[in-house]
Amino acid sequence: MAIASKPRRSLWMFGLESEEPTEAQRREHARLLSERVGVAIEPPAVRRPEDFQLRRPRIEPPASIAGFCFNDNYERARHSHRDYELAIRGEFPNPPDVVAHPRTDQELEAVLDWCSTRGYAAIPFGGGSSSVDGFTPPEGYDGVVTIDMDQFDRVLEIDETSRAARIQAGVYGPALEDQLRPHGYTLRHFPQSFSGSTLGGWIATRSGGHYATNHTHIDDFVESLRMLTPVGWWESRRLPASGAGPSPDRMAIGSEGILGVITEAWMRIQVRPKFRATAGVAFPSWEAGYEATRQIVQTKLWPANLRLLDPDLAKDGAGMDGERALLIIGFESAELPQDGPMKAAVEIARSAGGIIDDGDIATSGSGEPTGRGGAAGAWRNAFIPQGGGLAAGLGMVSDTVESAITWDRWPEFDASVREAIAAALREVCGGGTLNCRFTHVYVDGPAPYYTYAGLYRPGLGSEARMAVKRAALDAITQAGGTITHHHAVGRMHRPWYDRQRPEPFAAALRAAKRAVDPNGVLNPGVLIDA
Amino acid sequence: MAIASKPRRSLWMFGLESEEPTEAQRREHARLLSERVGVAIEPPAVRRPEDFQLRRPRIEPPASIAGFCFNDNYERARHSHRDYELAIRGEFPNPPDVVAHPRTDQELEAVLDWCSTRGYAAIPFGGGSSSVDGFTPPEGYDGVVTIDMDQFDRVLEIDETSRAARIQAGVYGPALEDQLRPHGYTLRHFPQSFSGSTLGGWIATRSGGHYATNHTHIDDFVESLRMLTPVGWWESRRLPASGAGPSPDRMAIGSEGILGVITEAWMRIQVRPKFRATAGVAFPSWEAGYEATRQIVQTKLWPANLRLLDPDLAKDGAGMDGERALLIIGFESAELPQDGPMKAAVEIARSAGGIIDDGDIATSGSGEPTGRGGAAGAWRNAFIPQGGGLAAGLGMVSDTVESAITWDRWPEFDASVREAIAAALREVCGGGTLNCRFTHVYVDGPAPYYTYAGLYRPGLGSEARMAVKRAALDAITQAGGTITHHHAVGRMHRPWYDRQRPEPFAAALRAAKRAVDPNGVLNPGVLIDA
Repeated sequence: MAIASKPRRSLWMFGLESEEPTEAQRREHARLLSERVGVAIEPPAVRRPEDFQLRRPRIEPPASIAGFCFNDNYERARHSHRDYELAIRGEFPNPPDVVAHPRTDQELEAVLDWCSTRGYAAIPFGGGSSSVDGFTPPEGYDGVVTIDMDQFDRVLEIDETSRAARIQAGVYGPALEDQLRPHGYTLRHFPQSFSGSTLGGWIATRSGGHYATNHTHIDDFVESLRMLTPVGWWESRRLPASGAGPSPDRMAIGSEGILGVITEAWMRIQVRPKFRATAGVAFPSWEAGYEATRQIVQTKLWPANLRLLDPDLAKDGAGMDGERALLIIGFESAELPQDGPMKAAVEIARSAGGIIDDGDIATSGSGEPTGRGGAAGAWRNAFIPQGGGLAAGLGMVSDTVESAITWDRWPEFDASVREAIAAALREVCGGGTLNCRFTHVYVDGPAPYYTYAGLYRPGLGSEARMAVKRAALDAITQAGGTITHHHAVGRMHRPWYDRQRPEPFAAALRAAKRAVDPNGVLNPGVLIDA
Repeated sequence: MAIASKPRRSLWMFGLESEEPTEAQRREHARLLSERVGVAIEPPAVRRPEDFQLRRPRIEPPASIAGFCFNDNYERARHSHRDYELAIRGEFPNPPDVVAHPRTDQELEAVLDWCSTRGYAAIPFGGGSSSVDGFTPPEGYDGVVTIDMDQFDRVLEIDETSRAARIQAGVYGPALEDQLRPHGYTLRHFPQSFSGSTLGGWIATRSGGHYATNHTHIDDFVESLRMLTPVGWWESRRLPASGAGPSPDRMAIGSEGILGVITEAWMRIQVRPKFRATAGVAFPSWEAGYEATRQIVQTKLWPANLRLLDPDLAKDGAGMDGERALLIIGFESAELPQDGPMKAAVEIARSAGGIIDDGDIATSGSGEPTGRGGAAGAWRNAFIPQGGGLAAGLGMVSDTVESAITWDRWPEFDASVREAIAAALREVCGGGTLNCRFTHVYVDGPAPYYTYAGLYRPGLGSEARMAVKRAALDAITQAGGTITHHHAVGRMHRPWYDRQRPEPFAAALRAAKRAVDPNGVLNPGVLIDA
């Protein structure tokens, strides 16, 4: 059985190698930026794997597993980190020594057993889209083996009666949907990283997906899962629900690779929607927008989409005037027209000060998307990642942070997080831009997502980026929010995660890890200390 | 601060002492049963606490905590077990030595510290409604201390903006609702044990409540919680949602007292419903009924009620003809009329063979309940526990089991569970009755609830009851269901729970317990071995 080759992914931008911009495009982008800031900016030359000088692999896989293990420069660099500033310059100071691509349970058992026996760090790897250093090799190990699950890429079984499918964990979003589509189904879980992330990664990191209300996280779609730990298989029963002790699945979900390698899951799937309705409602202010959003979600109509953009983002992303906020409301169903719930939601929005013409409510009964026109469509195009890589290596401070907070504390939270980011941008970059949207909304509070970019200053790099981020994360934690709603903890969020989680729970988690990973080899340092 | 006295609860029936039937009523009930079965049946004399001969308490609380600790016969019997056959005869062979009623965090800390230091078993106690031996004292300890949380009985704070309330764990259902009602809110969590169980008990056992679809378990209503462990306070942040590691709350929820004593929680509350709609739809068969139920739940209208009764139960509980199944559909909302979703649900039911006149759909816009008339109302009256105690001590085999299973396996599951129960009833009792209902329904499967009663035979007792139950639980486990959807594990379900949960998870849970309860004193033997 050969290793199925996958399209090579770019080392220095989100996407495939084939999607990378040309040198000419990068030069042109730098020239435009130079003009704007009045400083000569030169994009770095892209270094290719054949030119890398990586640390020599410290360990060699035994012959029994060598057939699916690799240590070439591309493989090791790809599994090193996702810091594009460093990557474009070929800087991979701490790469894994071996990258395994097991094809079967037996191969996975063999490589994990090798790591556990020898005490080599073993890093479960999905799509590598982690923006929080979720898969970067730890220091202090004799060897590091990254276990890339990309060969576990099939939908194995579909249960149409229960609307569930047994799916291997290493399948990327698009390939997953490609396998469900012919049967009329969809997982309908579309994190922003969809094209570059996998089911196993979504489960391990408690990914947030398409649905903006009600069932938002991947957690709600997991019916059962299968995970290999160093002490054996952790496999739960397929159950619609249970009251038998603490949920085993909920302990694995969000475990970020420290307890085991997820190999497959029974997932709740959806019939592809046929009826849709989309509306973009303008509000005179951010405050009016979020008050209306609160009222709509508390009415429990459970729209699939309920995304609020602040005035700055509504301007940049949807062409609005910079004064008004935009609330995108979407409903969908495979069975029932959605005009009724949409009408109810729009009525609430209007009575809370929202402005929309009836003619701007798009509905469809044919399965055709309704969110592609108007302000909502403009925003959709801005949201889906594209055309990346142009700024790689230029030293921009451009980043995001996200959280969730209860409604009662939200206005104060928003003010203090904005203030902290703005102050840090002023200090580090001399200024910048900042906007916010709600990615998901709950009855008891929103999940805000802040995007910011500093003014260009020569010489800024990863440390400048982290300085701003630290200020944002301090403010989020201080104001009572969660350090992450769906980006996960990884190594980057650890200091704030440690302040957030109850100490006895951390003790319980450390003990649980020792029980299933007695040699402490699985993704050491993530969530808890090894 | 005095110990607030609560109405005394009956030791031998579900309810208060004041609700117990008189001796004359019990005699009359026994006489009617005698006539039916042709055997003379004599109800046992009720033994009262003053007549009990309980084992002498093996330990004495120190003076520092003696003010809230008790060892009288009523207190020790009440916290011994919930086997009414034994209780009416005054049989409490293994009572706790001390029953503590701490009033403050400090008092709780003091009593738990005493237990942990001395190695006495400490049993967190809510309402004592466990039907699975969730609070019975273990053997093999020098002393057993039951910690009854009934003094933690207040709603401390209401956050109207986020629709959440901070509620102490020891409050009973009715007292909880009494405190929310003046503010226009309700937790709207009504397990069948509502009047005799507490918030902390619901959380510790993953109780299933009012809502039949979407958010069913107490799990979904917990925003954060506070739990005292022997190594300190386990307190989570109030968050609408989070993606930061495995959920600490989800590890405490369902922990059945083995990790700590839950003292309070921020709970998601509801505005009291104003708009309601109820319909009872008849189906020509059980199969037609459950097929329609599946279609309705998979349409995701999320009715508050979607309870299907099989023909036998529809006859006994709702006065139907014994051939037809009954599906009770209910919608409710504080904000919006529910005619639309009800119409959609009824249309699905009709096209799946359901029979209902439009005139039999009850709607209300005034907050008035709509489910009190017709077949649905008759069923409601049969469902709410009342008039208990008449059969206590007569040696009836009368019990329930519940589970959850995916739709694809449901028909086979149902057949094999029914067959196992019927066979066991024949063997143990020479026959009996059996019916089933869905208490909760999920997109991927139902939560069936079986109620059965054996024919009366003189001399049957707890062992006969367990013989039938074992057959039922074997069949449930064998057919792939969960050993409990909402009754919890306790000591009774342990052997089957051990077959259900993944072994590495059990190892993780044992290790987690050791980390937070190093002396192994909390509810030992429940969920895992001490």
